[in-house]
Amino acid sequence: MIYLDNAATARPDAECFKAAEKYILTDYYNPSALYAGGYNLHLELKKAGRNILSLVADDENYSIIFTSCGTEADNQAIFCGGRRGNVVTTGGEHSAVFSSATELSRRGIEVRFAGLNPDGSVNVEELLRLVDEKTSLVSVIHVNNETGAVNDIATISEAVKNKNPRTLFHSDGVQAFGKLNFRLTENIDMYSVSAHKIGGIKGCGALIKRKKLIINPYIYGGGQERNLRSGTENVFGIKFFELAALKRFKHLKENFAHVSELNELLREKLDKSLFKIISSDNSSPYILTVAADGVRGETILHEADDRGLIIGTGSACSSNEKKRYSRVILSCGISESMADGILRISFSHENTVEEISSAAEILNSIVKKRKDKMA
Amino acid sequence: MIYLDNAATARPDAECFKAAEKYILTDYYNPSALYAGGYNLHLELKKAGRNILSLVADDENYSIIFTSCGTEADNQAIFCGGRRGNVVTTGGEHSAVFSSATELSRRGIEVRFAGLNPDGSVNVEELLRLVDEKTSLVSVIHVNNETGAVNDIATISEAVKNKNPRTLFHSDGVQAFGKLNFRLTENIDMYSVSAHKIGGIKGCGALIKRKKLIINPYIYGGGQERNLRSGTENVFGIKFFELAALKRFKHLKENFAHVSELNELLREKLDKSLFKIISSDNSSPYILTVAADGVRGETILHEADDRGLIIGTGSACSSNEKKRYSRVILSCGISESMADGILRISFSHENTVEEISSAAEILNSIVKKRKDKMA
Repeated sequence: MIYLDNAATARPDAECFKAAEKYILTDYYNPSALYAGGYNLHLELKKAGRNILSLVADDENYSIIFTSCGTEADNQAIFCGGRRGNVVTTGGEHSAVFSSATELSRRGIEVRFAGLNPDGSVNVEELLRLVDEKTSLVSVIHVNNETGAVNDIATISEAVKNKNPRTLFHSDGVQAFGKLNFRLTENIDMYSVSAHKIGGIKGCGALIKRKKLIINPYIYGGGQERNLRSGTENVFGIKFFELAALKRFKHLKENFAHVSELNELLREKLDKSLFKIISSDNSSPYILTVAADGVRGETILHEADDRGLIIGTGSACSSNEKKRYSRVILSCGISESMADGILRISFSHENTVEEISSAAEILNSIVKKRKDKMA
Repeated sequence: MIYLDNAATARPDAECFKAAEKYILTDYYNPSALYAGGYNLHLELKKAGRNILSLVADDENYSIIFTSCGTEADNQAIFCGGRRGNVVTTGGEHSAVFSSATELSRRGIEVRFAGLNPDGSVNVEELLRLVDEKTSLVSVIHVNNETGAVNDIATISEAVKNKNPRTLFHSDGVQAFGKLNFRLTENIDMYSVSAHKIGGIKGCGALIKRKKLIINPYIYGGGQERNLRSGTENVFGIKFFELAALKRFKHLKENFAHVSELNELLREKLDKSLFKIISSDNSSPYILTVAADGVRGETILHEADDRGLIIGTGSACSSNEKKRYSRVILSCGISESMADGILRISFSHENTVEEISSAAEILNSIVKKRKDKMA
């Protein structure tokens, strides 16, 4: 089986699982408990926070709130950050930001969406035009989850602050964290990350925020996470996340080089008379989005699955929306017939050159056969 | 080591863990994905929902929303249920409901708190007096997490509906689920449960709700959980929850009988000249709260810990609130000097008669020594 849907979820790292397992069967205490077993877990969680934070930010200026997923982190950023005036975001956001922003607008906050360039990155000029003295929050996805387009959030956040220094800047970093070589710069106030995209488990994420930024909790209760996220901490998930993140960052550069090679190889091997490459050369190498004009992506996905190749069609998360075309892909200016044939192929450092060659063969042959039939 | 803090968190069930492990390393797909591996997990999650639901409700009239914890389920119930008029709840709620209700009142919704009886159960007459034609939501904890007092939510919810049929009724069932023999009756609209109190892992819970009840999601995004809770599903946590719940309910009656025996034994063996029993005879046998007048609970807890006995002082969750006295315990009408010496001893079916005898000896000896010193 060739797994090329790593942007939907990555295979949890077996070695990290082995090391985190003890937090299920042995160190199972409640980290809020006062006895030694509980208090030690409280310290372990603090260490996990410091370790994960250190990978992308300095812990003098940033702190971390563990959440149940990247989506929850995005919800906290949008609902607790966008409380006044207007909110500016992009047409290329993950549903976690897009749906939250849409809900915000139902609650009477004006939400402004900036358009996209053909590769899925935000039109920065348009975004900046939308920011005014009443903008409380700007949210720009770091790596677009459907096309892999990278938004230069360091530069964008600086330009936003130049227009309005009181505007908060948030970025969904779920597809960037552990994959791109990047550290948070001073104008980025909040940054969402997720464990299961980098070898941790589903059900764990975090919102990284500037230490001085005061925001409300989104989940209220016993006051865990310094009163910013209540609920008994998912100790196993958080420690697993820590281990997986440390490992991914340790090998970040070699993984990046390897995945870049796989991405280039697939671009090369896919038959250009059958596939149009949507992702630009500047996209994250972890995601390659292509379109098979005139053949439905879903059909290709199922045939590939039968042949042992697992790929995605756009965002897995948006499959629940039951919409035929991806709103992000259409926002890139891609025609409906092309949007119908969208495939998202997403890599892991675990994939091999051989797997990519086989994948290209399988995809070429499926689409060729379909097209021949139609002709 | 004798673990008697099972109400804070229970030891995850090793057998269920073994069975659920495959959802980490083998069946790791995204359940929203369209290929067979993903779709099968989608079906597995549906099955988990049906199975858990069937333990306390009929699936013709109820449905289940998986959340990241009991606290999140409570937040969804309170924030999405209490949107108008006033909200009525009790002084005996877990922080997840209490803090959410407090936040609701900051947002301009009137919140009314009914007082408690000495054992921690709600004063039902007072509660009903507070319900009027503008009450949008009533929330009453099923089993009080600090004293074990059981509120008769079937009767209370019926009385609430008699006063105002449009009022929603929610109950936090975290300390009841898998422990008391109970099924949801028609006047209970929402019910919160948690996995880690019954042998599952931390980071997984659910809100059970009447099927016909339309409520908003609390976490917005990709539309998972029939658009009622977004975020990639915690497959491992949910399947672990399913297995643990099925196992606990299978042995519910024998566990209840065994734990009742342990509870009675401890009541008997604790030196009445040193300890006052706070929990009433009608409380859940899983929780026994006592007070050592004049000796701080925290001191006893640490000395017991040194001697291999793990107990709690009130709710673990409220330890983050950094308040000396538990608001729930004070609401029971207990004096501050007594509230200072509160211990919560909470049982599991895994505890043995021998453990309880040792625990009683340890507790008696610690408090006696302290009192002798003071005299």
